[in-house]
Amino acid sequence: MPDINNFPKHVQFLKGEIETALQKIPLDHSPNYLYNPLKYVLNGKGKRLRPILVHLAGQAFETDPQDLMKAGVAVELLHNFTLVHDDIMDGDNVRHGQPTVHKKWDNSTAILTGDGIFVLAQLMLTGLPPLVQQRFNEVTMSVCEGQGMDKEFENDSSVSMGHYLIMIGKKTGALLGLCAELGALIRDESQETAHHLFEYGLNLGLAFQIQDDLLEIFGNESSMGKSLGSDIRAGKQTALSILAREKNPDQWDNFIKENRTISKYQSYFKSNGIKSDTEKVIQHYIEKAQEGLSVIPEEKRSNLNQFTTMILNRTY
Amino acid sequence: MPDINNFPKHVQFLKGEIETALQKIPLDHSPNYLYNPLKYVLNGKGKRLRPILVHLAGQAFETDPQDLMKAGVAVELLHNFTLVHDDIMDGDNVRHGQPTVHKKWDNSTAILTGDGIFVLAQLMLTGLPPLVQQRFNEVTMSVCEGQGMDKEFENDSSVSMGHYLIMIGKKTGALLGLCAELGALIRDESQETAHHLFEYGLNLGLAFQIQDDLLEIFGNESSMGKSLGSDIRAGKQTALSILAREKNPDQWDNFIKENRTISKYQSYFKSNGIKSDTEKVIQHYIEKAQEGLSVIPEEKRSNLNQFTTMILNRTY
Repeated sequence: MPDINNFPKHVQFLKGEIETALQKIPLDHSPNYLYNPLKYVLNGKGKRLRPILVHLAGQAFETDPQDLMKAGVAVELLHNFTLVHDDIMDGDNVRHGQPTVHKKWDNSTAILTGDGIFVLAQLMLTGLPPLVQQRFNEVTMSVCEGQGMDKEFENDSSVSMGHYLIMIGKKTGALLGLCAELGALIRDESQETAHHLFEYGLNLGLAFQIQDDLLEIFGNESSMGKSLGSDIRAGKQTALSILAREKNPDQWDNFIKENRTISKYQSYFKSNGIKSDTEKVIQHYIEKAQEGLSVIPEEKRSNLNQFTTMILNRTY
Repeated sequence: MPDINNFPKHVQFLKGEIETALQKIPLDHSPNYLYNPLKYVLNGKGKRLRPILVHLAGQAFETDPQDLMKAGVAVELLHNFTLVHDDIMDGDNVRHGQPTVHKKWDNSTAILTGDGIFVLAQLMLTGLPPLVQQRFNEVTMSVCEGQGMDKEFENDSSVSMGHYLIMIGKKTGALLGLCAELGALIRDESQETAHHLFEYGLNLGLAFQIQDDLLEIFGNESSMGKSLGSDIRAGKQTALSILAREKNPDQWDNFIKENRTISKYQSYFKSNGIKSDTEKVIQHYIEKAQEGLSVIPEEKRSNLNQFTTMILNRTY
């Protein structure tokens, strides 16, 4: 095990261990109808940010690494379950640079595959404290609620930034919140400690999702693994489209009436100050996230601070 | 609480209590996109046979009724989750006499609704012993595998009765097996006891499913809540079509080449002895089911024996 104080090496080490744990899930079963797409999803190129966060936050409480791995893999499976089902609902055809399950196979296969991944997640939790299972499923319900809001918001031009923050808080936010609190829950730390860690992950998740919206316009197409501007063109709410609408509704409505190239979007958001407004919102939530870390002694906070920076600095 | 020894009254009492417990699940939340179809499904007219079995089997071990109710409601939710997703995959438009979720709303709504129901099931298990959660999810994985086999079998004329029994054993069989063993698992009875009870439910489930196939041809359309012969016409495997094919492949292939009325199917299955063959298979699994009950003292076996008879005697 490399030096826990060398952050980049430590994260690489954790990612490797997580990949190994994912590979160990026994999937050489029949029927192929279920297990072939299951293997396909779990062999996909995820960044494994969520289980890495589970480990980094749990290490601050000296939580048993094997328990952290179970919890981390469960969260990664939960995340993949939601991706497979969301991709059907949103009609997304590419994920991590490869065809989505419903595109490569069909909707029925993708529904069943998502279900199977979620059951594997539940089985991963076997042996962990009851509170872990409870919070895991409460957060999953929150993610379902967020997805319901997301669907309601499609092509609804009355959605405010406030609504949007609730929605992404229930999805990306709650899931990262869960990651951050799992180690404390396993160690039976106080409710207050767990809650602060959840707040850290929640705010980090808000910053992360809004940055995702920014990268969807200003990022690098091949690293993103999908075409730029696809969400905004499909009428999905993003932080940028909402901020643009709130700032100058008529100008924005006029702009989106026509089919625009991605560079037109980029210059609109730059010249109207939407890009810098969005960056300010991201910075705001990063700072709020850092407040949540106050429950961790300062000398143990370094890796989580570096994780926060790592997420802030991604350019793809 | 009525006399536990008056079986029909006791079952009516349990059904009422189960409906009350289902109504108590808090669903007055937003977004409507998720919670409206959730309420729609849980207000549907299910027979609640699975939670009734959980109670009847658990009562033989004097398991805490509140724990049995949690476990029973969890199983009923699991059952409904699989129905909502299976109905999308199978393109079924009517369930319990009302439009299915994907028909009344759309596929995306039905995917999310099924997911939400399954999360509610997991939350119901909060506080029950870890082994209950483990078995619950192992059986759910089995149900997913069974559904995968079911999809693979569609329009595959090489499927034997043996294949078919494995598939329905993984679906209906394993779920009823779980119902039967839950009370023993909660009371931490021996593995052997739990296993025998699972076998009881498994074999009962096989009998139940094969009888369902029989009723799909010979039942009462309005009580069934769907049109007769729809599965067999859609190329789904049923016990009757497999037995008919195995008995006389050429004659059967010739028969199904044309679009036949339900009464033509009925006379084919009667005159070729398929109806009576099917009835014999059902009787075989009922008898195997009864063997599983040997782990329960004879004086406590009465309600489960009557439950078995009740399932055998349904005519709708």
